[in-house]
Amino acid sequence: MELDLRLYSARTDLAIESKELAQGFGGNQPIPGVDEQVEESEGIKVTRLGVRSEEGAQRIGRTIGNYVTLEVPGLRGGDSGLQEKVSEVFAREFEAFMKRIGIGQGASVLIVGLGNWNVTPDSLGPLVVENALITRQFYELMPDQVSPGYRNVSAIAPGVLGLTGIESSEIVQGIVDRTKPDAIIAIDALASRSLERVNTTIQIADIGIHPGSGIGNKRRGLTKEVLGVPCIAIGVPTVCYASTIVGNVLEMMKNHFGGAEGRSKQIMGLLDSITEQERLALVKEVLEPLGHDLIVTPKEIDEFIEDIANVVATGLNAALHEAVDPGNAGAYTH
Amino acid sequence: MELDLRLYSARTDLAIESKELAQGFGGNQPIPGVDEQVEESEGIKVTRLGVRSEEGAQRIGRTIGNYVTLEVPGLRGGDSGLQEKVSEVFAREFEAFMKRIGIGQGASVLIVGLGNWNVTPDSLGPLVVENALITRQFYELMPDQVSPGYRNVSAIAPGVLGLTGIESSEIVQGIVDRTKPDAIIAIDALASRSLERVNTTIQIADIGIHPGSGIGNKRRGLTKEVLGVPCIAIGVPTVCYASTIVGNVLEMMKNHFGGAEGRSKQIMGLLDSITEQERLALVKEVLEPLGHDLIVTPKEIDEFIEDIANVVATGLNAALHEAVDPGNAGAYTH
Amino acid sequence: MELDLRLYSARTDLAIESKELAQGFGGNQPIPGVDEQVEESEGIKVTRLGVRSEEGAQRIGRTIGNYVTLEVPGLRGGDSGLQEKVSEVFAREFEAFMKRIGIGQGASVLIVGLGNWNVTPDSLGPLVVENALITRQFYELMPDQVSPGYRNVSAIAPGVLGLTGIESSEIVQGIVDRTKPDAIIAIDALASRSLERVNTTIQIADIGIHPGSGIGNKRRGLTKEVLGVPCIAIGVPTVCYASTIVGNVLEMMKNHFGGAEGRSKQIMGLLDSITEQERLALVKEVLEPLGHDLIVTPKEIDEFIEDIANVVATGLNAALHEAVDPGNAGAYTH
Amino acid sequence: MELDLRLYSARTDLAIESKELAQGFGGNQPIPGVDEQVEESEGIKVTRLGVRSEEGAQRIGRTIGNYVTLEVPGLRGGDSGLQEKVSEVFAREFEAFMKRIGIGQGASVLIVGLGNWNVTPDSLGPLVVENALITRQFYELMPDQVSPGYRNVSAIAPGVLGLTGIESSEIVQGIVDRTKPDAIIAIDALASRSLERVNTTIQIADIGIHPGSGIGNKRRGLTKEVLGVPCIAIGVPTVCYASTIVGNVLEMMKNHFGGAEGRSKQIMGLLDSITEQERLALVKEVLEPLGHDLIVTPKEIDEFIEDIANVVATGLNAALHEAVDPGNAGAYTH
Repeated sequence: MELDLRLYSARTDLAIESKELAQGFGGNQPIPGVDEQVEESEGIKVTRLGVRSEEGAQRIGRTIGNYVTLEVPGLRGGDSGLQEKVSEVFAREFEAFMKRIGIGQGASVLIVGLGNWNVTPDSLGPLVVENALITRQFYELMPDQVSPGYRNVSAIAPGVLGLTGIESSEIVQGIVDRTKPDAIIAIDALASRSLERVNTTIQIADIGIHPGSGIGNKRRGLTKEVLGVPCIAIGVPTVCYASTIVGNVLEMMKNHFGGAEGRSKQIMGLLDSITEQERLALVKEVLEPLGHDLIVTPKEIDEFIEDIANVVATGLNAALHEAVDPGNAGAYTH
Repeated sequence: MELDLRLYSARTDLAIESKELAQGFGGNQPIPGVDEQVEESEGIKVTRLGVRSEEGAQRIGRTIGNYVTLEVPGLRGGDSGLQEKVSEVFAREFEAFMKRIGIGQGASVLIVGLGNWNVTPDSLGPLVVENALITRQFYELMPDQVSPGYRNVSAIAPGVLGLTGIESSEIVQGIVDRTKPDAIIAIDALASRSLERVNTTIQIADIGIHPGSGIGNKRRGLTKEVLGVPCIAIGVPTVCYASTIVGNVLEMMKNHFGGAEGRSKQIMGLLDSITEQERLALVKEVLEPLGHDLIVTPKEIDEFIEDIANVVATGLNAALHEAVDPGNAGAYTH
Repeated sequence: MELDLRLYSARTDLAIESKELAQGFGGNQPIPGVDEQVEESEGIKVTRLGVRSEEGAQRIGRTIGNYVTLEVPGLRGGDSGLQEKVSEVFAREFEAFMKRIGIGQGASVLIVGLGNWNVTPDSLGPLVVENALITRQFYELMPDQVSPGYRNVSAIAPGVLGLTGIESSEIVQGIVDRTKPDAIIAIDALASRSLERVNTTIQIADIGIHPGSGIGNKRRGLTKEVLGVPCIAIGVPTVCYASTIVGNVLEMMKNHFGGAEGRSKQIMGLLDSITEQERLALVKEVLEPLGHDLIVTPKEIDEFIEDIANVVATGLNAALHEAVDPGNAGAYTH
Repeated sequence: MELDLRLYSARTDLAIESKELAQGFGGNQPIPGVDEQVEESEGIKVTRLGVRSEEGAQRIGRTIGNYVTLEVPGLRGGDSGLQEKVSEVFAREFEAFMKRIGIGQGASVLIVGLGNWNVTPDSLGPLVVENALITRQFYELMPDQVSPGYRNVSAIAPGVLGLTGIESSEIVQGIVDRTKPDAIIAIDALASRSLERVNTTIQIADIGIHPGSGIGNKRRGLTKEVLGVPCIAIGVPTVCYASTIVGNVLEMMKNHFGGAEGRSKQIMGLLDSITEQERLALVKEVLEPLGHDLIVTPKEIDEFIEDIANVVATGLNAALHEAVDPGNAGAYTH
């Protein structure tokens, strides 16, 4: 009885989607304890969301913290010019983000690429790690010879529980204990509730990674509480639950007929009056034959994931190392 | 007005789905000109469908011919015992299929692996080719030394138009002209209308490959008319259109509330009375924001495609070469 | 008795190595019927070799024709600036080469990527094909809408005999028969006799591909005689025979001690006097335990092959399409 | 003057090669402090070498410890029957090895796959990790439900310094600190001094991994002293230094002419009398043009490495888990 359709629709790791859900489909009123700033230019929409109070956190079902989201609907088009532009905007936003939460230019950083190398839509983290500009070895071996303009950066792709038998968070903690970075940047593939955000959206958040988020069911937590140092999470939705696609359709149906006249209005009045339980039964009926609720990804995921991993790695390299500017940052990625 | 919702639901390359659509959801009456034989054991359902007359062809929107479908819902579970069993059943059905349409034991065969190596859900064809037991070179170079029990088999993965600039069918025709095989076996990834059939279904058909089928939009035709020799198509659905998922939900809604009493019955009466146009508008409204109607595939596609390519290649090797039995056929695949 | 050590040393597909062998190690006298022009700048050495007469052909064991070789010892360093420069020089040389042998700007071209996708040092051809800018489909489907500055280019990676059962040359002939290109460009991985040329050298030749050349033992011929249109071969040595490494050492020993005084001179006099048969026995003794004479490739072949495939594809795109200049040509490769 | 040719020949990570070098080419006298037991059947030669004293260790340049080597010249032939047999022998030897050094059946194990995923000849470790049967997560989450016959096994592929900025040993130590395994099994690709041992030899040793060994120049140490628990190293030579190929030839030349009469004897007497310095100069002369001394691997490394990783993983799964026997162990690998 407490279960409702929203449970299904709510399978999202994106704060802006949680906020949208809280506002109701298409709604727009401000939510107490949540501030929002939107900027848009040249096909890139940047939303800076702050969850400031417990009330706000409860309303949208998100931890108190800062969330910056880049939405670029054109990103799936494979336009390398747009990709470069997104890298630049990402670099700028990420640099500002670090500054805002007090991570200075001299702070050493450990990049953690979560996810599974062998599962394409879950391979974002390892791919970004592979293209990150790593310097820690030089600081360790010949610290006086490192050129200015670089930062001490290390990286690890810890693998997934099923392949290692060890929680990613345990592996990362072990490494943090020994290498003492000043901050963690964790990259992960996410689930979105709408297909159109898949591979077109990048989220930056200062809340770390919470157990159960991400697409790989990884039961891992990477947070300041656990690790002792701040942890910024970078996430890109690469999958959707089939059930949330269904949920979206039902929401849209209500919306579609909402303002209608005559018979359609009549229909919607009735649809609206179906109990949550009835709607749940409906979704279940659709999902049951699927065995388990399938998680889907676009057919072109191989190319999409490579493109967006490149965008994130290029942006990250430019944001972390002063000597790397968005123009030449691409040279460091494969 | 002529457009109807069915157009969206009908995005399927599977004959059994076309038949289901023609019968109406859940319907079961026989269709004139279409005969059907179903056998099921140990989790494998085999449906032998024959489209015998023009009327039957029109009713279900399929070419006259023979269609054998294996449905194995458990196939996505990664159970290697079940996979072996499916290989065996596939080998048996395929052998019988060849016999039925007059391809004898001595007939030489060219296997054509359609699709794109670099797009995981479209890579079934090239993967099967890579695991097929190829012998033609021995028949060419030292024909008197080939052991009995083998057949003359060659293979090609012609690539896709975007990568080669040449239609697959042109490439295949060029090769057929020069190498004169007695029959073609074309492997292709397909689109299904239901997520649960993705990677759990194998279709064998003697109608070849028709332009526009398959998931890669390949505008290719590989048929007896074009090639001069019989062409058996082996297909596995590896993707779904997002729109057909939506279409499925609407069908299921009607079904769900169909037998209901009271208010629900009232709702469905109304839903039923929405014009096709209204329903189309509805689906469009859902799809428009996606840009183009997205084609989706399960998150675990990398593993699924490898498993099913292996099942098909193993079965094919056993069916084509008498000396290879289902027990040792796996040794020839990678 | 007729066998001599040279047989082992001579395992090379490079014309400049054949010429060096003919001149004797370190020799420099001109060879009748062979002209040579060398240019060197910024670490790139370009040698234009012309084999003009039957005598020249016999002397160096090469078909009459034009051979252009780029040698770039620094290419294995992974310097992306140098790679770009090599692409430019390659594009310029290739364009001039086409002009010289009468392939005009409007001539349509079929690129053939020989070799085996799954064997890294033999994957150069397929890799170049994958990064080539393909346009034929536009000329076929909407010829009036193709922008000026492009050429009709198609491509195929026919696979190897062991995987297809069909000679590459048969596949290519079948395609040529149907698509009627004006010229063929065949890309292949080669064997060199010196490790230092592996992955640092590119050869362009107008003699096509002769049976038995290339590293995959492919028994294929792609020549103007066979195909009816000119065939330019682009080759990069990616492997060496272990025996040629041994052969090189023996040559160098003679050389090293050649000018020596005293005991060393004495040694070399004697070494020199060993019969060919004795030397052959020596090499055999080294090779026998290896089972078959191993073909080796540098440990870093994965990266080298990707880099050089990129250099060739980028250069090729710029040379073939006027609208693509060396500056933006990289954007078309992956 | 102190430098000698042996320095070049000695680039080996295999104890049996060190021993051979110490005995002189073809020599056979026992070395004080080193015991040896050889067994050979069905194409598999097992050598159990014990370095028992400091004297023995110095003589052969190896740490005191136990070394078991499997040599299988036929392994490169791709015979899957032989591969299975080698897996079985490996499993049996490895089980006995663990017992001998006191690692009991209940001991939990961390498998460490050293090396670089992206460099084929260096990818043995990660490949074995990927095919290992991992169980630790079940012991952590539902310890009472794990079937008997299994052991607590976890695994990590820590990556290489250039990609992570962190020494493999630091990563492993961090993980050992947190997960407290009873023993470590480290898998690494090695360098051999003879091409014929590449991909045909497996070495098991209880001395861990010492800094500077392995092919990736990884400056890592994984030993009982460092980690606090025993560390068994499993290594397979996948590369050779070009210089050791050269060195081998010179050794063989001396050997070849050693027993000769007349002029050949004369030559060898002289060759023998070349000073070490002269010989060194000779090798240098060969190597200098190569830039840096190239490390080479067989052309077919992609297939070889996959085959041998499979052999090791299958054997390891059978050795570690009682419930897995050599017959079904393959089912757990990919």
